Amino acid sequence: MLSDDRLARRARPLSTRFPAPHFPSEFDEGTIFFDSGFAAPQLLPDLTPYAEAALGAHREEALQYASGRGQPYMRAWLAEWMNANGCDLTADHILVTNGAKQGIDLVCRLLLDEGDAIVVTAPTYFTAVPIFRNFGVEFIEVGQDAAGLDVAALAAELDRRAAAGRAAPKLIYNVPEFHNPTGTTMPDARRAALVALAEERGIAIIEDSPYRRVRFEGADQAPLKALDRSGSIFHLGSFSKLVAPGLRIGWVAAEPALIARMIALKSEGGSSPLIQRIIHGFASSPAFPAHIARVQAAYRERRDAMMTALARELPTARVAAPEGGYYVWVTLPDEADGDQLAARAAEAGVHLIAGSRFFASQGAGVPRNHVRLAYSYATPPQIEEGVRRLGAVYRSMTC
Amino acid sequence: MLSDDRLARRARPLSTRFPAPHFPSEFDEGTIFFDSGFAAPQLLPDLTPYAEAALGAHREEALQYASGRGQPYMRAWLAEWMNANGCDLTADHILVTNGAKQGIDLVCRLLLDEGDAIVVTAPTYFTAVPIFRNFGVEFIEVGQDAAGLDVAALAAELDRRAAAGRAAPKLIYNVPEFHNPTGTTMPDARRAALVALAEERGIAIIEDSPYRRVRFEGADQAPLKALDRSGSIFHLGSFSKLVAPGLRIGWVAAEPALIARMIALKSEGGSSPLIQRIIHGFASSPAFPAHIARVQAAYRERRDAMMTALARELPTARVAAPEGGYYVWVTLPDEADGDQLAARAAEAGVHLIAGSRFFASQGAGVPRNHVRLAYSYATPPQIEEGVRRLGAVYRSMTC
Repeated sequence: MLSDDRLARRARPLSTRFPAPHFPSEFDEGTIFFDSGFAAPQLLPDLTPYAEAALGAHREEALQYASGRGQPYMRAWLAEWMNANGCDLTADHILVTNGAKQGIDLVCRLLLDEGDAIVVTAPTYFTAVPIFRNFGVEFIEVGQDAAGLDVAALAAELDRRAAAGRAAPKLIYNVPEFHNPTGTTMPDARRAALVALAEERGIAIIEDSPYRRVRFEGADQAPLKALDRSGSIFHLGSFSKLVAPGLRIGWVAAEPALIARMIALKSEGGSSPLIQRIIHGFASSPAFPAHIARVQAAYRERRDAMMTALARELPTARVAAPEGGYYVWVTLPDEADGDQLAARAAEAGVHLIAGSRFFASQGAGVPRNHVRLAYSYATPPQIEEGVRRLGAVYRSMTC
Repeated sequence: MLSDDRLARRARPLSTRFPAPHFPSEFDEGTIFFDSGFAAPQLLPDLTPYAEAALGAHREEALQYASGRGQPYMRAWLAEWMNANGCDLTADHILVTNGAKQGIDLVCRLLLDEGDAIVVTAPTYFTAVPIFRNFGVEFIEVGQDAAGLDVAALAAELDRRAAAGRAAPKLIYNVPEFHNPTGTTMPDARRAALVALAEERGIAIIEDSPYRRVRFEGADQAPLKALDRSGSIFHLGSFSKLVAPGLRIGWVAAEPALIARMIALKSEGGSSPLIQRIIHGFASSPAFPAHIARVQAAYRERRDAMMTALARELPTARVAAPEGGYYVWVTLPDEADGDQLAARAAEAGVHLIAGSRFFASQGAGVPRNHVRLAYSYATPPQIEEGVRRLGAVYRSMTC
């Protein structure tokens, strides 16, 4: 086989592997999953009629080679959907991708050279970290408060770097809405401040927004992309969280000239027109708004079940109720060990993810007193039972 | 917008865009397409029953997150399918990809650093060229004879490079079966010679084999991967040419330790389990062997129609009948200009691709007296009419 030595001759070593998700099918029936952001199986819609139309009336289009940038009807639909929230996009602003994660990868390939710095929140979406690492980046971690990414702290850090003669970061990666893992949503004013700072310093932004319509309360807000005057924001969307992860379809919204460059990097021959046709059929049907309402109601119920159970079982923890999305971020007392809690909970049949895994930096400085709980996959009774088990494990560790 | 200057700060500029395919829907009804390797619309199978099963009985699997390396049943099926032709693979040797093109990209990301040399045939598959260029490679072009890649010429070139103190290439890219664009198939002995040379010199091989079962005559041959003793061959397969391009599913067969590394680079979250379930349903059904027989018969008929018409309309051209695949490579008299012929043919409503576009190098040294004709998309009467028009254009240029 190609020797490790031979592979190691590459200048840039590979990142470690992605954290492997736990697939529920691999575990006992009594196991409860708060770890990965799986969709609720009960909410996966019946897409059969749209598949029948795609494979029948639309067969020649759905099974043939397709446009590398995405099907025209899909791109037009996505632009209009985003424009309903204050954007001003055309189909030419849209690149259909294989999930939002491919969007992260493509923006990196477009913008980054080895050694470039990028800004992420601390904590941040942990699946994005190895993608960035594969590009050999330096991470600049910025904290969050109740309004999301701390823009003043970022400005101060940028000033310090400039004063030290260090290059500005090339991009800022953020999940402004129902942040993963913290659940935080940036208010409009904070969004405007972040966009203004990035514009002033000439830094691109990746706005990763997979949970956008999974909102339980509060009004829809304009995405960062709607505030983009300099054409430097890459908005990433996805159907994974709202419709079904197995579709593997997302999109990038960016300036047309940048989209044209990204097509050259999206070398796998375009995303499946069959899947695009199925999604478009569903999204254009009356079943779609009904589905969104059902998703919102069901995840709200699960969030509420988790908040109630956490208040009872982990009364010393701080937990902010997210207005949408899939996750709650649990801050335990300073001396608690989230890594150990996650390990012991798994032994008790409850899977969750230690908060320390959501930091780009590793080692002694990373806070250990957090865990992330997803309420998306477990049913309300499972949430009740899972948090009860978690409470018992926690108490056994602290007594 | 991000300025060109800002984008140009990247050390490695982007390759030029992929050649945009002509989509038949954008042209007049009378236009005839010999250019892109589109599937025959008449051969796109009815996948409705398999989609219904995927979205019904298998909904929870098909619409949920899936394994990053591909679904276990799909990988097991693919390993067995390749083992029927002399390979010795398990599911762990298989990575499911978004078409074979993603496989090319992943192997490049695994193995290549900027400035590395790779070997391609002259001519070669032109869509692979910009993928390689995005990695900043140096191309070593090697000719072909009637048995495919000229292994003796490659050995001599490797010796020359070594004598000049230049680094050996990192990989050899080849389409050993129904080569694109020449249609050539390597006999077993030539395959063995290529594998032995690569092994001796420590060079990896990408065996790109999308046309494998689109064989009209001759017995199935063992792929290069079946001869791989050193674990350095990456076999790329695809369902695009045999079933439907719109599925966007292919695979890489390589050593498990290399597959594990490639998963870390395949950062888009796994290929769609919905599509994998549809393909597996079809491929496991009695409809699949019947479909293969139908595909083989139909493309044989189209190839025959094209060979007959070419013999009549372009009697001074040399054309070798391919034993399978989608293309014939037409060698015109030395003084003929394939670029001009392609341009004039398009004006006459016949699209084809000038042979000069299939060479990794560009400029004065590239032969101009070839064109590539795909017989996959046009019907036999269209092939008859298209080649008639082509003959008239050619005669008008040479009189």
